[in-house]
Amino acid sequence: MANMRTVEWDYARQQVRLIDQRRLPGEFLVATYDDYRHLAEAIRAMVVRGAPAIGATAAFGLALAAQQSLATDVAGLLADLRRAAQVLQASRPTAVNLGWAIQRVLQAVDAYLAGSLASRDVGDLRTFVLGEAQRIADQDVILNQRMALHGAALVQDGDTIIHHCNTGALATVDWGTALGVIRMAHEQGKRLHVLVDETRPRLQGARLTAWELEQYAIPYEIISDNAAGYFLRSGQVQKVLVGADRVAANGDVANKIGTYMLALAAADNGVPFYPVVPTSTIDLSLSGGEQIPIEERDPQEILAIQVDGERVAPLTAAARNPAFDVTPCRLVTAIVTEHGVVYPPFEHNLPGFVRSSLK
Amino acid sequence: MANMRTVEWDYARQQVRLIDQRRLPGEFLVATYDDYRHLAEAIRAMVVRGAPAIGATAAFGLALAAQQSLATDVAGLLADLRRAAQVLQASRPTAVNLGWAIQRVLQAVDAYLAGSLASRDVGDLRTFVLGEAQRIADQDVILNQRMALHGAALVQDGDTIIHHCNTGALATVDWGTALGVIRMAHEQGKRLHVLVDETRPRLQGARLTAWELEQYAIPYEIISDNAAGYFLRSGQVQKVLVGADRVAANGDVANKIGTYMLALAAADNGVPFYPVVPTSTIDLSLSGGEQIPIEERDPQEILAIQVDGERVAPLTAAARNPAFDVTPCRLVTAIVTEHGVVYPPFEHNLPGFVRSSLK
Repeated sequence: MANMRTVEWDYARQQVRLIDQRRLPGEFLVATYDDYRHLAEAIRAMVVRGAPAIGATAAFGLALAAQQSLATDVAGLLADLRRAAQVLQASRPTAVNLGWAIQRVLQAVDAYLAGSLASRDVGDLRTFVLGEAQRIADQDVILNQRMALHGAALVQDGDTIIHHCNTGALATVDWGTALGVIRMAHEQGKRLHVLVDETRPRLQGARLTAWELEQYAIPYEIISDNAAGYFLRSGQVQKVLVGADRVAANGDVANKIGTYMLALAAADNGVPFYPVVPTSTIDLSLSGGEQIPIEERDPQEILAIQVDGERVAPLTAAARNPAFDVTPCRLVTAIVTEHGVVYPPFEHNLPGFVRSSLK
Repeated sequence: MANMRTVEWDYARQQVRLIDQRRLPGEFLVATYDDYRHLAEAIRAMVVRGAPAIGATAAFGLALAAQQSLATDVAGLLADLRRAAQVLQASRPTAVNLGWAIQRVLQAVDAYLAGSLASRDVGDLRTFVLGEAQRIADQDVILNQRMALHGAALVQDGDTIIHHCNTGALATVDWGTALGVIRMAHEQGKRLHVLVDETRPRLQGARLTAWELEQYAIPYEIISDNAAGYFLRSGQVQKVLVGADRVAANGDVANKIGTYMLALAAADNGVPFYPVVPTSTIDLSLSGGEQIPIEERDPQEILAIQVDGERVAPLTAAARNPAFDVTPCRLVTAIVTEHGVVYPPFEHNLPGFVRSSLK
């Protein structure tokens, strides 16, 4: 990754740096921002994607806003911060992590100012905002590294692993979830081979995961999502690793479309299937996956595919494009989290695990 | 289909007409041939694809050769036919149906000449060759219509059907296999909706099946192959129909890559999964699908995919591209053939069915 995080603060230049994910893998471009409004525009334009990465970017956006503010007192700086929070929040209104990160910074500022040791100096407050954004970013990295360590213990030297979608550094501040496990096992010296699901329709596998694996020098080959079953059935695969958007209390896993069929093929061949997720993704308020709403996205994602510069589908064709599916818990071998690995029966083990991890 | 077969003889102009499948769905072009060498070139260039269509095309190629021949006696015409057979055979040496159709014409000619009523007139022999080619084409259409009728009896009014790859008129002389069933049920007045697997990597679903369904005015939507599991699990699908390249004596089905994962998802949700195949596809010499060799094709089929005119995968990426997979017989609800529908246990029922159909 050219030694940089997906999103980071440049302390020399006092600006935010983002890897422009829209240009990968064709070009590696680093975009820099010293105006939070431009950063909000970048979030909207999907220069950065992935919930944790978006959250950290918004937090750094508040640090930019604090830096840009001309306020000479705390009240003025606070007003500027709240205005910036609204602009940043509006950049992707449905992104949960974005709102969470913004609120965390604002609440930390409130707590800081309410504290008996708080400075009333606006310069100190600017530094505090940046510090809180940096903590959000660093905590994401530490969280991912912990997940990666727990997961890497399940990976054997010589394993061939099927990986779906992109769950790597590019989806987070650094390291990622399932791809972080692969990277950690590789750094531990285990020889691995990754079969990269191209991951239709948005092709995050062929585009981003392949690019990341090249950066880490981990051997890989891209496959059509259709081919995963063939490789599993012919005994060429030892593990299947995926991320997850949401996990229900019973262990049902909502993740990128195609995960369910992949899990079926893994189970049918006795190959372990591991979702790798931060504990925050486990939603105990959902008793089962059927309660997770499935978003359908723009049919153009299906229809826009080209070969030799020509669109493949008939011009008048319609398409359906569900973005996620739910893998039932009976197909899940174990769930890897930053606090350890949870095994079935999930209905019994997950709630206790999550509650004890919150203590 | 603009009222024409995928391959046909034009009796007015004494030439062969092919739908140019390389241009679909962007353009509907009909290519015409009055020289068998150009027709051989067209087979090589995949203007026509699908085993039965290639076979009929080669047979019509011999009819062209007979027409082109300047021979004034039977021996001379026979020599010209044998030369043409070699040229046509070399156009796609591994296509089993191509060799089969050529041999069938040559053997029919031999039998005709050996018969006591045979004319020794070269004009009569030219007519006989064309007649035999026409019989091969017509028999394929009749065979497919029989399959379609048996299959259509399994389809209910109101069904939503998932279909994989292209198995339609374009893969045969007309009608096709699984798509022929859908077309027949539609012509019977059943209201259907088809979810068309785009069928990575060659996208025959998005490209050809979608185009055919438009011709038949059957409602459809294209989906990524990844999404089939979602639609099956959410109860939106009543049948899954596929073709097959080869069926083993135990009912294991070799077909386009992705069929196995689709069959798993159908079985997991209790949705019937029907391969539609001519009896000639059932190979009793194979006790199980593990004996069917799986061809791996050019990785460029995976890597060449574009969006907005730009290649998606890293330039240095490698890919693996198995063309077929094997669906174990336990996932197969029933096999539809031109002689009827065969149900499990296939190990017991298939061999007897095939042998009795040969009587």
